[in-house]
Amino acid sequence: MKALEEKIIREGKVLPGNILKVGSFLNHQVEPAFTMEMGREIARLFAAKKIDKVLTIETSGIPVAFAAAAALNVPMVFAKKNKTSNVSGSVYSTVVHSYTHNTDYNIVVENNYLNAGESVLLVDDFLANGKALVGLIDIVHQAGGEVAGAAVAIEKGFQGGGDILRAQGLQVEALALIESMTDHSIAFRK
Amino acid sequence: MKALEEKIIREGKVLPGNILKVGSFLNHQVEPAFTMEMGREIARLFAAKKIDKVLTIETSGIPVAFAAAAALNVPMVFAKKNKTSNVSGSVYSTVVHSYTHNTDYNIVVENNYLNAGESVLLVDDFLANGKALVGLIDIVHQAGGEVAGAAVAIEKGFQGGGDILRAQGLQVEALALIESMTDHSIAFRK
Repeated sequence: MKALEEKIIREGKVLPGNILKVGSFLNHQVEPAFTMEMGREIARLFAAKKIDKVLTIETSGIPVAFAAAAALNVPMVFAKKNKTSNVSGSVYSTVVHSYTHNTDYNIVVENNYLNAGESVLLVDDFLANGKALVGLIDIVHQAGGEVAGAAVAIEKGFQGGGDILRAQGLQVEALALIESMTDHSIAFRK
Repeated sequence: MKALEEKIIREGKVLPGNILKVGSFLNHQVEPAFTMEMGREIARLFAAKKIDKVLTIETSGIPVAFAAAAALNVPMVFAKKNKTSNVSGSVYSTVVHSYTHNTDYNIVVENNYLNAGESVLLVDDFLANGKALVGLIDIVHQAGGEVAGAAVAIEKGFQGGGDILRAQGLQVEALALIESMTDHSIAFRK
């Protein structure tokens, strides 16, 4: 998605530890119109597939997942990082390793919100080593659903997670796929 | 908002500790079309005011805040509960007490995303004792902005936070304002 690549070049900032900072429009401040445009692009990329639900993980995947769900006209579910007091009853849960924060955490989805036989599209803001998506895939399989594919706003291709999932046969779409980045330049995969 | 009241009656569940569970459409599973409708209603309620930005706190306020920001055609910023590795530079921060989780936590907003002179609308999914809104008001004032008002999907009026803020002169709008609730019934304020 050309407009996203241009925005990354214009507003993105590379921080130590392979962190790409895009808080001005993606994961701290959010531009609704642009986010809805990303959602429509995701819907277009998965137009050939039946999608019953969009699944993401709190927090920063929520706006783009919401926008994709709006474009697909299906519900969006976000996995929670802790079982809180307003999550009652049985949950699907799994452990995810966060690259950004260098910690392990549980994610949970209440059983009621994912059902057997549903075709689920995974959406997130970033894809790096793919651990978050692997956790979401596990959750969907626990529910007896199937994974229609995964869509992310930005993939850091050099961290390999997306290609591992593609090699397993999953349709993984990145609206911007970064091949390499340094303090001074960001190169996208052709 | 009649449609929201009806949804609360139909799908909401009162849990011990004054928890209203509405995970089927508001804060775990989210219905995009209905959420966008809530966003348009919030925009309508603040049509007389200049709004430059919408501010919420992660996590569950994000969809309705995003929808309100989309309807108002302004950016949405979400305060983060921790300063993470992709938040760099100076931040505004304050401490908030969570009624739901019975803990204190810090919230931070990077300085770049709130500016002096901006008129900011606060949006959240729930309003109970108002501590989250008080924290957001503090953040806006630290930035030199002004608070245009606050809009929430559901206010638990019996917990008093909304009325305290109204008594201070703030325009506080709830799309559904619950006067009382028990295991068996939910009554809305007329």
